[in-house]
Amino acid sequence: MSTMTTTTEKELFIKMVLSNWELQINRMNDLLGKLSDEELSAQTAPGRNTGVYLLGHLAAVSDGMFTFLGLGERLNPEMDEIFLRNADNSGIEKPSINELKDYWNKVNALFAQKIDQLHAEEWFTRHTAVSEADFAKEPHRNKLNIVINRTNHLSYHSGQLAYLAKK
Amino acid sequence: MSTMTTTTEKELFIKMVLSNWELQINRMNDLLGKLSDEELSAQTAPGRNTGVYLLGHLAAVSDGMFTFLGLGERLNPEMDEIFLRNADNSGIEKPSINELKDYWNKVNALFAQKIDQLHAEEWFTRHTAVSEADFAKEPHRNKLNIVINRTNHLSYHSGQLAYLAKK
Repeated sequence: MSTMTTTTEKELFIKMVLSNWELQINRMNDLLGKLSDEELSAQTAPGRNTGVYLLGHLAAVSDGMFTFLGLGERLNPEMDEIFLRNADNSGIEKPSINELKDYWNKVNALFAQKIDQLHAEEWFTRHTAVSEADFAKEPHRNKLNIVINRTNHLSYHSGQLAYLAKK
Repeated sequence: MSTMTTTTEKELFIKMVLSNWELQINRMNDLLGKLSDEELSAQTAPGRNTGVYLLGHLAAVSDGMFTFLGLGERLNPEMDEIFLRNADNSGIEKPSINELKDYWNKVNALFAQKIDQLHAEEWFTRHTAVSEADFAKEPHRNKLNIVINRTNHLSYHSGQLAYLAKK
C-alpha cells in the first residue's frame, strides 16, 4: 500500500510537470499556425533573433533532451552547430522553414512517445549532466527537473516569438 | 516510515518547483540591476509593452498568488487595475519606477517568507480558483501547480524584458 501511494504521488508530480510542458508546446504550435513564412523569418525585435532561428533553437534544445534524459538517440545532432553553438547571424546556412517545422514536430512527437514509456521512478533518477556525487547531495537535479527547466526556456523564447504576430 | 518517505518525496518535488521559481526571480533581478530607468521605460519592441508595464504586471501577478494560495492578504490589489485589467497605453497613471521596484521586491520577499512556512502537505491541496468537484477529478490542479504556471509566466515576459538590455 505504501508503495502504491508513493507511485501515485510521483505520477501526480510527473503529470504536473508534463502538462505544463504540453501547454507551452500547444501555445507555441498555435502561434506557429498563425505566422506566415515571411513573419517567421523576421526579427522578433530590431537586431534580435529571427523567428526561424528561435524555432530551430527550441527544436535543437528539445532534441538534446533525449541525451540528457537517457531516452536513446536524438534526431539531428547537427542542428546544434547552427542553432546552439552559433548565433543567428553566423552565416551558416539554415534549413528551410518547412524542414525546421518538420524537425520541430518530429522532435515533439518522439519526445511525447518516449516520455509516455518512462517509468515514474525513472523521472527521479539523475540526468546525465549531473555526476553521481553531486546528485547524492542534490537529488532535485533529476530528469524531471530538466523538463521543468526546458519548459521555462520554451516560455522565455515564446514571449519573444509572440512579437512576430500581428497585434 | 511510509509517511516519512512520502513527505521526503513531496519535499523534494516542492524544492524542484521553488528552486526554478527562485532561479527566474534571480535572473529577473540581475536584469533589473543592469537597466537604467530610461531603458526600463522603453518599449520592449516597437509598439509592445514597456519594461515598466511588464514589471508592474509581473509584480501584480505574483501579488495575486497570495490569494490563490490562501497565504493571507495580498500587498496591493489596486495594482491589478493598472497592470492586469488595463493595457500599457490605458492612460491610467502608473507608479514611479522606484515605487514599482519596491512593490516587486516586497512581493517577492513576502512570498519567499510565506512559502517557507507552508507545510509540504498544503502545497498539494487545491488552489482557490478550482472547485472541490474539479479538484477531485484533477488533483494536479493544486497550489504547487500555480507556482509552476507562474514561473513560466515570469519566463515568458523575462524573454521580452531581455530586449531592453544592450547587446
